[in-house]
Amino acid sequence: MKIGLLQLNSTIGDFAANREKLVAAYAQAVAQGAEFVLAPELFLCGYPPRDLLQRPDFIEANLAALAATAKQIGSVPLCVGFVDANSERPGRALRNAAAVLQHGEIIWRTNKSLLPTYDVFDEDRYFEAAKKVEPFVFNGRRLGITVCEDIWNDEDFWPERLYRRDPVKELVAQGAEIILNISASPWNVGKEKTRLAMLRRVARDEKIPLAQVNLVGANDELIFDGHSVALNASGELLALGQGFAEEILVVELASEIQPSTFNLQKEFPPRESQVFSALALGIRDYVRKCGFKSVILGLSGGIDSALVAVLAAEALGAENVFGVAMPARYSSSGSLSDAELLAKNLGLRYEVLPIEPVFNAVEKQLENIFAGTKRNEAEENIQSRLRGVTLMALSNKFGALVLTTGNKSEMAVGYCTLYGDMNGALAPIADVFKTEIYQLARWVNRDREIIPHDSIAKPPSAELRPDQTDQDSLPPYEVLDAILDGYVVKNLSKLEIVARGFAAVTVNDVVNKVNFSEYKRRQAAPALKISPRAFGMGRRIPVAQKFRAQP
Amino acid sequence: MKIGLLQLNSTIGDFAANREKLVAAYAQAVAQGAEFVLAPELFLCGYPPRDLLQRPDFIEANLAALAATAKQIGSVPLCVGFVDANSERPGRALRNAAAVLQHGEIIWRTNKSLLPTYDVFDEDRYFEAAKKVEPFVFNGRRLGITVCEDIWNDEDFWPERLYRRDPVKELVAQGAEIILNISASPWNVGKEKTRLAMLRRVARDEKIPLAQVNLVGANDELIFDGHSVALNASGELLALGQGFAEEILVVELASEIQPSTFNLQKEFPPRESQVFSALALGIRDYVRKCGFKSVILGLSGGIDSALVAVLAAEALGAENVFGVAMPARYSSSGSLSDAELLAKNLGLRYEVLPIEPVFNAVEKQLENIFAGTKRNEAEENIQSRLRGVTLMALSNKFGALVLTTGNKSEMAVGYCTLYGDMNGALAPIADVFKTEIYQLARWVNRDREIIPHDSIAKPPSAELRPDQTDQDSLPPYEVLDAILDGYVVKNLSKLEIVARGFAAVTVNDVVNKVNFSEYKRRQAAPALKISPRAFGMGRRIPVAQKFRAQP
Repeated sequence: MKIGLLQLNSTIGDFAANREKLVAAYAQAVAQGAEFVLAPELFLCGYPPRDLLQRPDFIEANLAALAATAKQIGSVPLCVGFVDANSERPGRALRNAAAVLQHGEIIWRTNKSLLPTYDVFDEDRYFEAAKKVEPFVFNGRRLGITVCEDIWNDEDFWPERLYRRDPVKELVAQGAEIILNISASPWNVGKEKTRLAMLRRVARDEKIPLAQVNLVGANDELIFDGHSVALNASGELLALGQGFAEEILVVELASEIQPSTFNLQKEFPPRESQVFSALALGIRDYVRKCGFKSVILGLSGGIDSALVAVLAAEALGAENVFGVAMPARYSSSGSLSDAELLAKNLGLRYEVLPIEPVFNAVEKQLENIFAGTKRNEAEENIQSRLRGVTLMALSNKFGALVLTTGNKSEMAVGYCTLYGDMNGALAPIADVFKTEIYQLARWVNRDREIIPHDSIAKPPSAELRPDQTDQDSLPPYEVLDAILDGYVVKNLSKLEIVARGFAAVTVNDVVNKVNFSEYKRRQAAPALKISPRAFGMGRRIPVAQKFRAQP
Repeated sequence: MKIGLLQLNSTIGDFAANREKLVAAYAQAVAQGAEFVLAPELFLCGYPPRDLLQRPDFIEANLAALAATAKQIGSVPLCVGFVDANSERPGRALRNAAAVLQHGEIIWRTNKSLLPTYDVFDEDRYFEAAKKVEPFVFNGRRLGITVCEDIWNDEDFWPERLYRRDPVKELVAQGAEIILNISASPWNVGKEKTRLAMLRRVARDEKIPLAQVNLVGANDELIFDGHSVALNASGELLALGQGFAEEILVVELASEIQPSTFNLQKEFPPRESQVFSALALGIRDYVRKCGFKSVILGLSGGIDSALVAVLAAEALGAENVFGVAMPARYSSSGSLSDAELLAKNLGLRYEVLPIEPVFNAVEKQLENIFAGTKRNEAEENIQSRLRGVTLMALSNKFGALVLTTGNKSEMAVGYCTLYGDMNGALAPIADVFKTEIYQLARWVNRDREIIPHDSIAKPPSAELRPDQTDQDSLPPYEVLDAILDGYVVKNLSKLEIVARGFAAVTVNDVVNKVNFSEYKRRQAAPALKISPRAFGMGRRIPVAQKFRAQP
């Protein structure tokens, strides 16, 4: 049977546009010979709709979009995700559902059984889980239709198993001949490989062909990578969708088809390439789905803002990226020339708007009240905040979103100024550790120098006091990032991190900085997620708390 | 049997202090004749610990605190909430549990059955629900011990029932003679009445005496009100704990005891008094649990900042509140004198730090790049942001937290400046509609003028352009707040709101403003929650979304 996989990008709540795109792609898949077509989880309303699900008008609009879609579907069925009402009580009012549409009608429905409620997922908040599943019979064949998490339940891929049921096994036990899965599975580094290995294991273990369509596109923090897949009953790859781009795949799902020779371990693009594509998609979708087309960012001459500028130019076109240098008394001339060179290399609009006169005016404003006090971070932060004022004024005047350029290492330890350099509608690299920033910058420059060599080579500095470097306040980034990986990503104790070979005093200092700066992250811009544990909706820490694990 | 109810305030993660407070209060209750003592849900680790629960070192510290507490407990048992490990797989790794401690040991454990996962609650994210409950037998009596939500399951109080089980009925069916409940039930306006009515119904329906101890104190957004309660088997009130303050209650839980004559409908303090107490507690706990003792805020001469100053002085003492006026060209002289009068009335430190010279410097900085453009919100926001820079500089220099003074009406429609007047560690009145602000201000002035009459009487204005008033951009606050109550709190559609008697064009404009300003709220300071639906952790809306319900 030829399966059509509509790996498409939908916008949350844009029912008309999502439906139009879906119907057009369905027609293309049918024209290419598809006999059964799949579209992603909750495609019609977009994923994740979060608390929009609590609005009855949102649910109604989604049901109306499903009915309107059905009217445009002919003899080839389309299976698509939507939000169904659940009238059973006790129980939650909604279902994460899939409908099969054919001949202008909704001919079958099924509901998601396994509702992810961890990390960035809150599905128990909204949905009632299905208690059972059954195959859908189409042309005499039993199709096992599952929704996303329903297929992520293999013990080898999930040692801490959460669920008592296994919908795939239940469907196979009821004679399913093919497993179909509609997903909205967000990406993080390496996820495309894990997901594919997991799906291959399911196909091989159950000796069943399998096709999964996955959402593509970014919604706020989450980046969905696509990489839709078709496998034969030996778990061999028949087709693999692109990463980070829309695609319509039509694939014959039969064992006699020769599998692809794609080498899963070798042939995915390198990590840097994938991260770059993911972040560019994240910027593009955030800006456009918010109704904007251009961005503004501060160019400090450093590596972080340079990388964000490159990503933004890739995402939106250089003509839609406005770089602003805002020197003050501690800015080096090298920083200014590095910023200018970057803008030239990328072809960005570039302006220099010094903040020094404004900084002088603030110093005068505070002269009396600060008299007799020692210089501290107050004076440093004023500079950062005046840059923030400048960028926001440009944003308000010219209608472009501000991108903030902080990285994950800085965000973790609070080496950033709230209401200063943290200003921005989106934080594209706030889930990228500084050591990864260097790798990405070198990858960007793999063919020619785009990011100025000096931006990469010089010691990183906030340039907020004389001769400052990041390492005045922080351990070397290799050390810092390793400690942060232990504390923030893996939730290790201080003792466990010390046991990895770091000085207790350093670990203690880093952990204290992470804890103390929670209040900054609470007010941070949404950060594109590329790691298994990003700051933001997937990491929820109280601000007013006093847990300080003993080392 | 005499039950001791330890209505105490714990700090998240402060195991040593929480344990010390618990043991001291236990000793007091025992000295007062308690035969069985109850402390709140998750008291030892604090509630809600959120993703600290994912740290194994946090769980270990909590188990160590429980073991250490047990060693200090004698023949009178103490029942207290803690986080237990759950080794059953499949299943989540933790339990929301209660332990009974006696003679230096943990002698019994039970787990929470009903895990709230809605609004501000995420318990499915962390805990595995108990599948069954049974009474604890003490001195030959069967005690039905329940944890918070386990008792909130009456159909009359929860028409959209979520849970299939009813732990109270299960315990009664197994012969429980008393129902005991340990809670961390956060407050919103009227919650003390709803909770008490619900508990009375349970006692009356099940014909069983009942005692509930509830947490008191604030943790980030959430304010726990205490109001612990003891009821006889007729649902009559035997004892009621204070609101918003710690208290140790020891009460004989027997039907022969004459119930209190407290009139539930009449004798709770008026709404304004309760809101005021709640917000003062919220400020005090946030500031102190963050390790600070003083606050700074901008005094505009308007009613919002005046109310926050009054609350802060109540919470922290006037000597710990620093009010700053920051006039610029559009500030009226009346505003300055109103701010000064308020500071005098409260006895605050008060300074005037004009931003006009800095505003001039920014205008000069942007003169060329803004040449030929029309004045718009860019110039207005610069003023607000320079005030934000000023307050944050003072905060960084003097080590006091900034309070931001926006109200819920402004936050809803985005009538506030991100990185400007929205700057602050805490937003004490961001869940209070403007119409409620007026009520609170009049209540504050019930005996004498504390908030200057003019601050209440004059038309509200941001004073960011000549002769500006809020109603240039917004409908009258009575109208705005009613529309917001429909759209934000009750999730009504535009049609439903229009049907309540508002002009479609006004409703449409307000709804568009709410949707458009989601990005501001995403980066807002934590707001003390006093309504059933506050902005923040209990309302999770995507930023990049296009749902615009048709009117």
